[in-house]
Amino acid sequence: MGKWEGFFSKETSSLKSSEIRDLLKLTEGKSVISFAGGLPDPSTFPVEDIKKIADEILETKSASALQYTATAGISELRKQLVSFTGLRGVTGINENNVFVSVGSQEALFMLFNVLVDPGDNIVVEKPTYLTALNVLRTRKPQFHGVPVTERGPDLQILESELKKLHSEGKKVKLMYVIPTAQNPAGTTMYLDDRKYLMELASSYDFLVVEDDAYGFLVFDGDNPPPLKALDKEGRVIYLGTFSKILSPGLRLGWIVADEEIIREVELFKQNVDLHTPSFNQFIAAEAIRRGVIQSNLPKTKSLYKEKRDYMINAMDKFFPSSVKRTKPVGGMFIFTWLPEKFNTVQLLQEAMNRGVAYVPGSSFFYDYSGTNTMRINFSFPNKAEIERGIEILGNLIRSKL
Amino acid sequence: MGKWEGFFSKETSSLKSSEIRDLLKLTEGKSVISFAGGLPDPSTFPVEDIKKIADEILETKSASALQYTATAGISELRKQLVSFTGLRGVTGINENNVFVSVGSQEALFMLFNVLVDPGDNIVVEKPTYLTALNVLRTRKPQFHGVPVTERGPDLQILESELKKLHSEGKKVKLMYVIPTAQNPAGTTMYLDDRKYLMELASSYDFLVVEDDAYGFLVFDGDNPPPLKALDKEGRVIYLGTFSKILSPGLRLGWIVADEEIIREVELFKQNVDLHTPSFNQFIAAEAIRRGVIQSNLPKTKSLYKEKRDYMINAMDKFFPSSVKRTKPVGGMFIFTWLPEKFNTVQLLQEAMNRGVAYVPGSSFFYDYSGTNTMRINFSFPNKAEIERGIEILGNLIRSKL
Repeated sequence: MGKWEGFFSKETSSLKSSEIRDLLKLTEGKSVISFAGGLPDPSTFPVEDIKKIADEILETKSASALQYTATAGISELRKQLVSFTGLRGVTGINENNVFVSVGSQEALFMLFNVLVDPGDNIVVEKPTYLTALNVLRTRKPQFHGVPVTERGPDLQILESELKKLHSEGKKVKLMYVIPTAQNPAGTTMYLDDRKYLMELASSYDFLVVEDDAYGFLVFDGDNPPPLKALDKEGRVIYLGTFSKILSPGLRLGWIVADEEIIREVELFKQNVDLHTPSFNQFIAAEAIRRGVIQSNLPKTKSLYKEKRDYMINAMDKFFPSSVKRTKPVGGMFIFTWLPEKFNTVQLLQEAMNRGVAYVPGSSFFYDYSGTNTMRINFSFPNKAEIERGIEILGNLIRSKL
Repeated sequence: MGKWEGFFSKETSSLKSSEIRDLLKLTEGKSVISFAGGLPDPSTFPVEDIKKIADEILETKSASALQYTATAGISELRKQLVSFTGLRGVTGINENNVFVSVGSQEALFMLFNVLVDPGDNIVVEKPTYLTALNVLRTRKPQFHGVPVTERGPDLQILESELKKLHSEGKKVKLMYVIPTAQNPAGTTMYLDDRKYLMELASSYDFLVVEDDAYGFLVFDGDNPPPLKALDKEGRVIYLGTFSKILSPGLRLGWIVADEEIIREVELFKQNVDLHTPSFNQFIAAEAIRRGVIQSNLPKTKSLYKEKRDYMINAMDKFFPSSVKRTKPVGGMFIFTWLPEKFNTVQLLQEAMNRGVAYVPGSSFFYDYSGTNTMRINFSFPNKAEIERGIEILGNLIRSKL
């Protein structure tokens, strides 16, 4: 027991470190090929444009850009986000429906704190985004899992779970869902399924937190509108992020929601950090206004598609046929299923000794199932690393068969 | 009741909006002279230096500055903060004792969440920083108040409260204190008092959260070392901020503490927002390394001293003699006591109708006492606004005598 351990909150000291973050630490400065994080390829950063924009902001608006600002975000950015989210088909909103956060991580943190109490019935996909799960776990809800199929969450299972809970006099409060280029599964919900999910949400009266982190990064097939575009009742809370389409280092995300929910998040954020950095917000507002992000997207998508295909080829070459994998339609990850006997948490140390890191898939299941799965990132490593890393992983798996 | 109110957390929905933030909103775009916020004078922002630095970072380090980074902060900044905090007399620390946050507000939020459980005995000054109090309130502790005298918190009262609690078998877990240029009282603790407070903390085994927001902005008299410089046991958690000495819009603060405490905050921050913006951290690291902040401070201090004197002259001219006020040795605020019958919350609407805003002092008391007090900011308004605003306030007060 550490010297100060007795002083730590009993409520929060049970927090476990995110495996991704710990991995990032372990691989720092080492020659490990990392398939672990969700880092963009830095060649996609529009550096020259950001430089020009930063210069002009400091020349013309420094008194605002370096000063405190409103908790919900600067008006310039909230307005730009109304039209930018419109590119995804979300209409009928105004700047009061938009809230700027420190990455979409902070949006998840605030929303789950504002909305979820211990014991609340919460629906999540199996698997789903690890750090959203980590925040949800701190709220001690009752989790209900819906398996992800090739067309997104299995709505038949969801509906029968909703029915069952209803017959027990219980009510689901919210569902956290990533309908487009799901993290980690890489699947996208069909339009009909999206409509049906909204009907279920309406019938059973629950909120939907829609994480659209990869909505602008779909490079295969259809890209149907987000749930928020189908939302007639204001029950969808939409989350966007600049991390995958401009720069994660600026730490900017946004929420689109009913004003009443925005106001509650605003009260919470006053305590968390007063507001999101003003300078960064001005940069993002200008990057949208000048079309920098919009014109940068095709290049990013084609690069990621190329890297995905390259990784899939490497997997087909080096992985034994008993390993199953997704073919993601967008985003940054391939999800794989090893034979049942594998435990990818235990396998990780050996993989790292051989020079490769990934994220064990069980981190993405609320019940820590999926012990034979792994999430593999293709956006950050270069082609040589993809080829070499997949070969190492393949050899390691073969040696254990 | 709003449409979604039933979905809000029962734990967090009792949050009240910070009066300062609401005031900022009300005064936005109106011709109200605001003495309410704690905004730096924008003429103190070293805009040209920041521009040069931002340019060079984007030219030479964009792949890191725009990318994700470690939760505790970039190594470059943590190292610079070791030497920068050293300017305040804090020695014997290394970069592992330093943690970078989104303003010092986020540091307060994380620390109080990580350290305070409902019912814990917590000591605060009366009055003390409003937004620290707001975060503490969400943790539902048992507050113990120590009045602030002209030489800082009354240590005799503190000691007898500690004795009393000890005799009841109770233990104080932490004290939140602003020893230097206190917000809102403007006082600074003597060196002997600082040493004595550290003895009490050691004897009664409590942690000290030391908010040094104004430690670099003392313009009158002695500026004794912070408590952290006198801390032999690692029980002081030191908070610094770039908001008052570089730019609040960059949202950067830092913690200096025992590694065990840093590690706990790190786990918590992974859930909150993954990390503080990388680009902003690189800017701050360079601003320290190049001496930009250090060489900018004398100008800022002399400007604030001038504004303080100007405001004090205006108060002596326009306020009735029954109004008492501090003469702050640093920082940004003058605290005033109106005759007992005044209620400054009720007075505020009238003041705003006449064109002046301030913060009612009761917000700075954990028990909402101090109903006849107000905090008045002198760093942001210009001289004409100071003169005019104090005249309006003086006339309003006289009209009620």
